Amino acid sequence: MLAIRNIAQLVLVPPGPISGLDMGRRAVVEVLPDAALLVGDGVIHWFGPDSECNPPVGAAVETVDAQGGCVIPGLIDCHTHTVFAGSRESEFVQRIEGRSYAEIAESGGGIRVTVEAVRGADVDQLVELALPRLRRMLANGVTTVEIKSGYGLTVADELKMLEAIRRLATIQPIELVGTYLAAHTTPREFADRPDAYLDLVLDDAVLARVRDEGLAEFCDVFCERTAFDVAQSRRVLTTAKAFGLTPKLHADQITQIGASRLAAEVGAISADHLETIDDAGMAAMKRAGCVAVLLPGCSFFLGVGQAPARRLLTADLPVAIATDFNPGSAMIESLPQVMGIACTQMHMTPTEVLTATTANAAAALNRHDRVGAIRVGMQADLVILDAPSHDRWMYEQGRSGVRTVIKRGVVVA
Amino acid sequence: MLAIRNIAQLVLVPPGPISGLDMGRRAVVEVLPDAALLVGDGVIHWFGPDSECNPPVGAAVETVDAQGGCVIPGLIDCHTHTVFAGSRESEFVQRIEGRSYAEIAESGGGIRVTVEAVRGADVDQLVELALPRLRRMLANGVTTVEIKSGYGLTVADELKMLEAIRRLATIQPIELVGTYLAAHTTPREFADRPDAYLDLVLDDAVLARVRDEGLAEFCDVFCERTAFDVAQSRRVLTTAKAFGLTPKLHADQITQIGASRLAAEVGAISADHLETIDDAGMAAMKRAGCVAVLLPGCSFFLGVGQAPARRLLTADLPVAIATDFNPGSAMIESLPQVMGIACTQMHMTPTEVLTATTANAAAALNRHDRVGAIRVGMQADLVILDAPSHDRWMYEQGRSGVRTVIKRGVVVA
Repeated sequence: MLAIRNIAQLVLVPPGPISGLDMGRRAVVEVLPDAALLVGDGVIHWFGPDSECNPPVGAAVETVDAQGGCVIPGLIDCHTHTVFAGSRESEFVQRIEGRSYAEIAESGGGIRVTVEAVRGADVDQLVELALPRLRRMLANGVTTVEIKSGYGLTVADELKMLEAIRRLATIQPIELVGTYLAAHTTPREFADRPDAYLDLVLDDAVLARVRDEGLAEFCDVFCERTAFDVAQSRRVLTTAKAFGLTPKLHADQITQIGASRLAAEVGAISADHLETIDDAGMAAMKRAGCVAVLLPGCSFFLGVGQAPARRLLTADLPVAIATDFNPGSAMIESLPQVMGIACTQMHMTPTEVLTATTANAAAALNRHDRVGAIRVGMQADLVILDAPSHDRWMYEQGRSGVRTVIKRGVVVA
Repeated sequence: MLAIRNIAQLVLVPPGPISGLDMGRRAVVEVLPDAALLVGDGVIHWFGPDSECNPPVGAAVETVDAQGGCVIPGLIDCHTHTVFAGSRESEFVQRIEGRSYAEIAESGGGIRVTVEAVRGADVDQLVELALPRLRRMLANGVTTVEIKSGYGLTVADELKMLEAIRRLATIQPIELVGTYLAAHTTPREFADRPDAYLDLVLDDAVLARVRDEGLAEFCDVFCERTAFDVAQSRRVLTTAKAFGLTPKLHADQITQIGASRLAAEVGAISADHLETIDDAGMAAMKRAGCVAVLLPGCSFFLGVGQAPARRLLTADLPVAIATDFNPGSAMIESLPQVMGIACTQMHMTPTEVLTATTANAAAALNRHDRVGAIRVGMQADLVILDAPSHDRWMYEQGRSGVRTVIKRGVVVA
C-alpha cells in the first residue's frame, strides 16, 4: 500500500466527460486542502484530511511525502504522433522565412520527409527513437498517451508503426493507446487516386488484423480539403467502426468542410483541431456527445490562430487539450507547456485546462471510467507538483514543476 | 586547459552589436562543422577543425566530449526582474477570466502585491527565493543575467534589492548585472506626487552610494502613460547618468508617448519592450545605436500582441531578446522557451534569435567586448546542446536540450 501524505491541495477532478460550463467550476472540481491519499492494488483506496489518514493495520505501507505539493490526476495526452523518424527543422526555418506550404513541399519538405524516414526505419528503430520522447513526457507528469500511425502510408508501414506503439507500451511506464491513421494523407504513389489507396488500407483483412492483434482502439482520418473529403472520411470511419475501431477525426483545422458535423454523424468519440469550427458543427457535436480536442501547441508552433476555445466552452461541449506532438506542425512534446499556451493564448483558466488534460482527455480515449479523475476505485495515476496549487503550477511557466509521477500506484518518475 | 571535442557545429557568433539585417545572415554568423575548441585562463584560446586540435604540449588538458552536439555562446538574459517575493497566480487567473488591470488592482492585485512582499523580506530571504530560479536558468544555458530593482519603491528597499543581486552574484555561477529601477512605478504613499518620490530615489547621496558600492551599472525607468512621463523619465536617466549609471528604458510597451525617441536622446544603451514603437522611434534609435530589446514572453504571458520584430530587423536595428521574467506580466523564467516564442510568434529565424540572445544581449549590457560571441580571446561562456545544430535545438521545443554549460571555462551545469 502507498500513502501520500502532506498534500497542500488534492484536486478532486471528477470522472469525465465534464461539459464546458462545468470544467472551471470549483463546485465541480473540488479542492481538498491538507489531504492524504491511500493507494492499494494500483487504485485509489481512500483520500481525505491528512489528520484522518489511517492505513489498515498490518499493511505494509510505503509513504511518499508530498512536501506541501498539490496532487492532480496523471496527465493524459490524447492526440499525438510520437512515433516518427527524421527531423524537419529546415521546414521550420523556411516557414519562419515566409515560405508557403506549397513552396516547402516543392523544395522537398512537408510530410513526405517523415514518411520516407518512417518507411526506411524498422520497428526497432522507431521504438528507439520514441523511447526518450516518452521518458521526457513521463517526467512531465503524463501517464497516458495516444499515438497515431499515419507516416507509413502503405499497409505494411502503417502496421509497422502500430507494432512499434504496441512494443513501446510494454517497455516503459506510460499507458499507450494506438490509433490507426492510415488516412492521414494520400501517398505520392496514389496521387489523384485516393480511393484506390483507401481500398488497400481499409481492406477487410487489414482491419481484422488491427482488431484481432489489438494494434489500435481508434481509427482517425484527416478530413480536410487537402487530404480526404467528407465522403471519403465517412467511408474510412464507418468501415473501420464495423471492425470495432472507434472513430476520431482531424476536423475543421484549415478549412470548414463539415468535418465536425461528420464526427457527430458517425458517432466519433472526438473531433480534434477545430480551429475553423462553426455553430452547426458545435451544435452537432454537443448533441452527439463528441469530445472537442483542441491542440494549442500546433497553432502556436505554426504561428496561426487558435481554435475558439471559449466559444466551445460556452456551447457546453466537453473540451480536451493535447499536444499534437509531431515533427511537422507541432514539435512540442511537453503537455505542461501546451497547457500554458492554452491558458495564455486560448484564455482557458488553469482549472479548465486541468480538466481538459485529465477527465476529458480520458473521455476522448474512452478511459474515463478508469483514469483522469481522483475518486476511490479509480486507477492511481497521480502527479505530485512542486507547487501548492494547480493555479500556481500553471502560472509558473517555463519550468517543469513536476515532483513525483505515480502510475498504477507505483512511483515511476 | 579545457578542450571541447567532437562538436558537430560550432556557431561562430561574432561580437555584438549585430544590426538587424545581418543577424540572420550565415555569412555573418558562420558555422564551423566538425570542430573543437580550446579554453585557457577562462577565455577561448583556439577553435578550428577537430582534426587540427593540438593542445599545447605539457599542458594539463581536461577534455569534454560534445558527442556531436552543437556549441553556442552562453545565453544572456538582458532584461529580468528575477529578485522578487510573493506570488501572483490569482491575478493570472483573473486576467484569463477577463478582468481588467483596473479591476485586478481594485481587488488588491497588481504590482503592489509584489512590492508589499519585497518590503516584508530581508536580503537573506530575497537571496533564498532567487537562488533556485538562477539555478534553473543556468541549467537552461544562461550564463549572464541582468536583474532590476523596482519592487522596493523606497530608498532602503531598492538598495536592499540591489544588495541581494550583489550577494547572489557571489554565490552561484551566473554573472549578474544590477540595474537600478526605482522609477518602476510611483508607490502608493506618493500617489499623485511622483516627482516627490523621484526626489528621494534620485538623491545625490543615494546615487553616489549605488555607484560607489557597485550596486548597479544601469538605471532604468518605466516610461509609460501609467508610470512616468517623458519629462520625468528624462530627469531620472540624465540624473543617474551623471553618476555613471548607463540609461535603459521600458519604452513603448502599452502606449506610444515617445519613449523610444527619449532613449535615443539620452543615449540609452537599450530601449526595451517596443510593442508600440513607431517609425520615428525606430529611426531615432537606429541613429543613436540603441539596442532594441524585445520581450516576447511578456506579450505571450499577457495574451497580447507582440512587438514588430520583423519591422525592427528590416530597419536594421540591433535586436536583443530577453525573458522579462517577473511575477506579474511574464512568469516565464526559461530563456529557451522565450526564444521559441520569438521564432513562432515574432517570425524570427533561429539564427536571428540566437544572435539576439548572445551578441546583441551582450551589447544591451555593455559586455559585447567580452561575452556573447565565439572568438579567440572572448570569455569562455559556452553551451553544448543536445542537438547537432541550433536550428534543430530551437525547432525541438518543450524540452531543455542543454547538455553542458561552461562559464569562464569551467563546467558549471
